[in-house]
Amino acid sequence: MTPRFERMCVAGVGLIGGSLALAARQAGVVSEVIGFGRTARNLEIARERGLIDRIATTPADAVAGADVIVLAAPVGACVGLARSFAPHARPDAVVTDVGSVKGTLVNALEASWPTPGNVVGGHPVAGSEASGADAARADLFRGRACILTPTDTTAADALARVRALWLAVGARVEEMPAAVHDELLARVSHLPHLVAYALVASLDDVRAGGRVALDYAGSGLRDTTRIAASPAELWRDIALANAPALGRALADFRTALDRLDALVTSGDASGLEAALTVARAVRVRLGGTST
Amino acid sequence: MTPRFERMCVAGVGLIGGSLALAARQAGVVSEVIGFGRTARNLEIARERGLIDRIATTPADAVAGADVIVLAAPVGACVGLARSFAPHARPDAVVTDVGSVKGTLVNALEASWPTPGNVVGGHPVAGSEASGADAARADLFRGRACILTPTDTTAADALARVRALWLAVGARVEEMPAAVHDELLARVSHLPHLVAYALVASLDDVRAGGRVALDYAGSGLRDTTRIAASPAELWRDIALANAPALGRALADFRTALDRLDALVTSGDASGLEAALTVARAVRVRLGGTST
Repeated sequence: MTPRFERMCVAGVGLIGGSLALAARQAGVVSEVIGFGRTARNLEIARERGLIDRIATTPADAVAGADVIVLAAPVGACVGLARSFAPHARPDAVVTDVGSVKGTLVNALEASWPTPGNVVGGHPVAGSEASGADAARADLFRGRACILTPTDTTAADALARVRALWLAVGARVEEMPAAVHDELLARVSHLPHLVAYALVASLDDVRAGGRVALDYAGSGLRDTTRIAASPAELWRDIALANAPALGRALADFRTALDRLDALVTSGDASGLEAALTVARAVRVRLGGTST
Repeated sequence: MTPRFERMCVAGVGLIGGSLALAARQAGVVSEVIGFGRTARNLEIARERGLIDRIATTPADAVAGADVIVLAAPVGACVGLARSFAPHARPDAVVTDVGSVKGTLVNALEASWPTPGNVVGGHPVAGSEASGADAARADLFRGRACILTPTDTTAADALARVRALWLAVGARVEEMPAAVHDELLARVSHLPHLVAYALVASLDDVRAGGRVALDYAGSGLRDTTRIAASPAELWRDIALANAPALGRALADFRTALDRLDALVTSGDASGLEAALTVARAVRVRLGGTST
């Protein structure tokens, strides 16, 4: 009994917004998708690829008649978009987002929307370093988690409709408080991104004996830093919006790094092997290696 | 005019040693390969898979008649192996290794070998987190760099023979001083490994709201920490043998991380975006992403 949306507005037709639009259309849960965004060329690609039916050029046009509005822009742009949409939206429209940070964003969205009960925070845990409508794929969410973060204000009906949308595109939907989401994602996503960016930044232009260090990079460095190819603007917003939890994750990471460093510096072979063995076991449990 | 080796001893028939044995056999540059190592089961796999012709159970048996001896054990074990082989080896045998650290290791190998001119330090830059004879593949070195680090002591003939061996298995061979190798590899390999181990170590058993953080890991964290599934003993040895260069790489990484952290903490959106944009450009130049 999947609810059918008449018209979906997707604001930000990139990897996530574009994939959701495509997957929702293919699943038959939405009749029409309107794309809205900053970059005309990206919207044209989205239309050419059939992710969206039509490009809107004004906020009023974007949300006119829409019964679901998906904010899929960088986290820092979502509240501005919501404010620009609010005067033109149907009173019963459901507003949801796909941001990697939920607490501050969902609060701000509720504050900016005339019917705050219709705001449902969401985060499909399915990113990659790729971006843009070019990268969108209908199967992006299949089997992946989508975390919804309803508040005391959230209307049960709005939550049910957003849940049904994500289920229809193949996601495993899970609810949790926004603060818990932000703490978990700071650890498994925001911290690794900051570390990967720092790692490549520290290698920029490093030379030894007249040779450029990065010319000797193997698959290990490439894997370790792949997510540093993610759009800077996206991760600027996420880091800033989740700074306190990211700070806690960074502190724990520094403690772990300092500990390994101290074992190396002191030449403690058995202590170092023990610490690396524990870390390795954690990584092997995580899966997705050839070990 | 590839020199043909009569008999190759491979001490440590893992990913690298096993792949070299297999590739050298397939390339027809070696007539017979003798495997030597600590783990009987691994050696049996190597024989069953056709990586080696025969298993040696004593150092004397391992190197008897061998004209090339490949030390493919963890860095910390190589000098002990060389010492155990020396009394039994042919005087004209070439001794080479595949260690990820060269300076201290090559010096120690030269000091432990009766004909130090026959010692040629080597490092095929082609690892992965996989290990053991199971993981060996004939194409592992194809198109990959193999760095040789001859010293003033190295005999030209020995160097030429080792160079020919790596060329025969498809590697791009490059020579440089051991100190330069160690500085470069500290940056692009040893540092990322330590960072990856620290990252997973810092996530072990982290929970929020009763949920296990690692249950929410996506492909980003998996990529970033894949190399932390590498054998602990290998990386213990490498980190300890290259501690000074690794320390310099770590210092630069900490500086880069502190800078990003300061931008996040101070809420400097434009400064953070600029720093992430620079880092992203470095990563994109490195290649191997879907961006």
